[in-house]
Amino acid sequence: MDEFSFIRSIKPEYYRQSSLIKGIDDDAAVFRPSGHDIVTAVDTMVEGVHFTRQTMAPEQIGYRVLAANISDLAAMGSTPAFFMVSITIPSDWSQEELERIYEGMKRLGDSYQMDLIGGDTVSGSELSISVTVIGMVHKGKARYRSTAKTGDVLFVTGTLGDSRAGLEWLLNPKGQASEDHTYLVQRHQSPVPRVAFASNLSHLERLTLNDVSDGIANEANEIAKASEVDLWIDSKALPFSEAIQKVFPGQYVDWGLSGGEDFELLGSVPEKDWSQVIEAAEQAGVTASKIGYVKTKEGPEPVVKVNKSGEWEILTSSGYTHLKEKGD
Amino acid sequence: MDEFSFIRSIKPEYYRQSSLIKGIDDDAAVFRPSGHDIVTAVDTMVEGVHFTRQTMAPEQIGYRVLAANISDLAAMGSTPAFFMVSITIPSDWSQEELERIYEGMKRLGDSYQMDLIGGDTVSGSELSISVTVIGMVHKGKARYRSTAKTGDVLFVTGTLGDSRAGLEWLLNPKGQASEDHTYLVQRHQSPVPRVAFASNLSHLERLTLNDVSDGIANEANEIAKASEVDLWIDSKALPFSEAIQKVFPGQYVDWGLSGGEDFELLGSVPEKDWSQVIEAAEQAGVTASKIGYVKTKEGPEPVVKVNKSGEWEILTSSGYTHLKEKGD
Repeated sequence: MDEFSFIRSIKPEYYRQSSLIKGIDDDAAVFRPSGHDIVTAVDTMVEGVHFTRQTMAPEQIGYRVLAANISDLAAMGSTPAFFMVSITIPSDWSQEELERIYEGMKRLGDSYQMDLIGGDTVSGSELSISVTVIGMVHKGKARYRSTAKTGDVLFVTGTLGDSRAGLEWLLNPKGQASEDHTYLVQRHQSPVPRVAFASNLSHLERLTLNDVSDGIANEANEIAKASEVDLWIDSKALPFSEAIQKVFPGQYVDWGLSGGEDFELLGSVPEKDWSQVIEAAEQAGVTASKIGYVKTKEGPEPVVKVNKSGEWEILTSSGYTHLKEKGD
Repeated sequence: MDEFSFIRSIKPEYYRQSSLIKGIDDDAAVFRPSGHDIVTAVDTMVEGVHFTRQTMAPEQIGYRVLAANISDLAAMGSTPAFFMVSITIPSDWSQEELERIYEGMKRLGDSYQMDLIGGDTVSGSELSISVTVIGMVHKGKARYRSTAKTGDVLFVTGTLGDSRAGLEWLLNPKGQASEDHTYLVQRHQSPVPRVAFASNLSHLERLTLNDVSDGIANEANEIAKASEVDLWIDSKALPFSEAIQKVFPGQYVDWGLSGGEDFELLGSVPEKDWSQVIEAAEQAGVTASKIGYVKTKEGPEPVVKVNKSGEWEILTSSGYTHLKEKGD
């Protein structure tokens, strides 16, 4: 591969963000934030660990690694602005395939007017893509996982477990794919970060948010710990797509709790603001489901409780509950 | 390796930057720049490509990947503030070795009061470290490679080729290491980014800077192209350490031109400001050498010329000259 022609091919022809002063033509990028706080995160995906060529086309790989990062920005209530890509390239990936990875990122980045402002291109033995994202949020308006309070409504956007289900079908397809299978696969390959939803709620005084990248059992425990509260989740209120219930009736609840990268948002608001959450979701073209409440911590450590079959049991970060132990 | 205990072990106990609002305890980090432009860059080092366990101890690997990034910040005239680390971990690296990598980064980061504010930890088949740095610079004071003007003095900090020479000795040691060898090896393993030098010149109206990460032949051509000027370099004025001249008398000029990662700064200033450059260097404990001049572009394309043995020849990005062709 010709490294210089590759870098030329991925270099943006123009930039959109008015705060950008210098893009990828110097030792570093420069931008001027005006009245905003800056939000930044990095996420890496490695071939064979986070994806395979069997389960994703190059465009989808690019799309998905950027989507995972944008989901972090959404969970902070921030507006995506810039990204940088460091890619490690093994010899068995062609320039055409690599360009398609960047096209996938560009397709998603363009939908947020994001600019690619830097990166690195190195050789190695396995394909690895590390993306840094930078977003802006009005001063003091970043959303944290540490602000949940007793009495808050606990909610989650969209539906749970679909991405895990789509992956399952890609790895073990059995027979012809129905519309339901296609839906789940698309939820795995092209998740939509909930930027618009979070942004529609920027006027709320207090909003707790966490993105669902490791199953809500894990994310709920993060909120509980950071906010020092208990969370009570009604398992019957957890939102599942019709597709997952039809295709994987025996697995979908477990996958919803611990099944991985849905990139939905888990959050809490004071009960009085709940109707505004529903409205913000509607405007963003997604659902928001009330799944429980924030309660005062009862024991020495914050916990997440879930009622399954009428009993309240502790839900661990990994999605394990006592009910499961009893053979449920 | 226990991922959670590893992450706990690298998590900073406190933060120093007053602009930081949220560190690594949420989906993303948040900071508030006040009156500054933000400078950011990313750099990746892969085992077997950029380093081996033969040539660097874990601390040095960590130190060096962060140093490469800080050098980019220095070349923009900015002050280092934050870094994020995405690390891909193969099974043959122990937790103790990984912690030493982070210690190396911490040692260097601490000297600039930098805070580690985010990152990612993933498994893979080869060790790869991707570092994102964020720096601050007073509004409008970022330094670019595109601002060189006819009549400027062209200069470089420190000495050239030492890092390449140190690597050579590490790969092919012959006999006992002298003090000169030790010096070159240390220049390879623990380069000092020229942050203080650039910062001491923040009052200058115009200062062109580029960091020397691929030999000055390449960086000089970058300045020439970006500024649309010719650069004339006097090869006899190129600064070399006594050590490199003694240990590698036959190779040091080539290594100085194209030899890689010195992390010195190449730049230009109006002649009237040259004395201030010398002073800034002295204060920063480094030398600055006048190596030539910026001239009006003579041909259709900007070029870098170097006089070697009295003749002016074109120096390409890769360090090739016509004189070399003649068997010099």
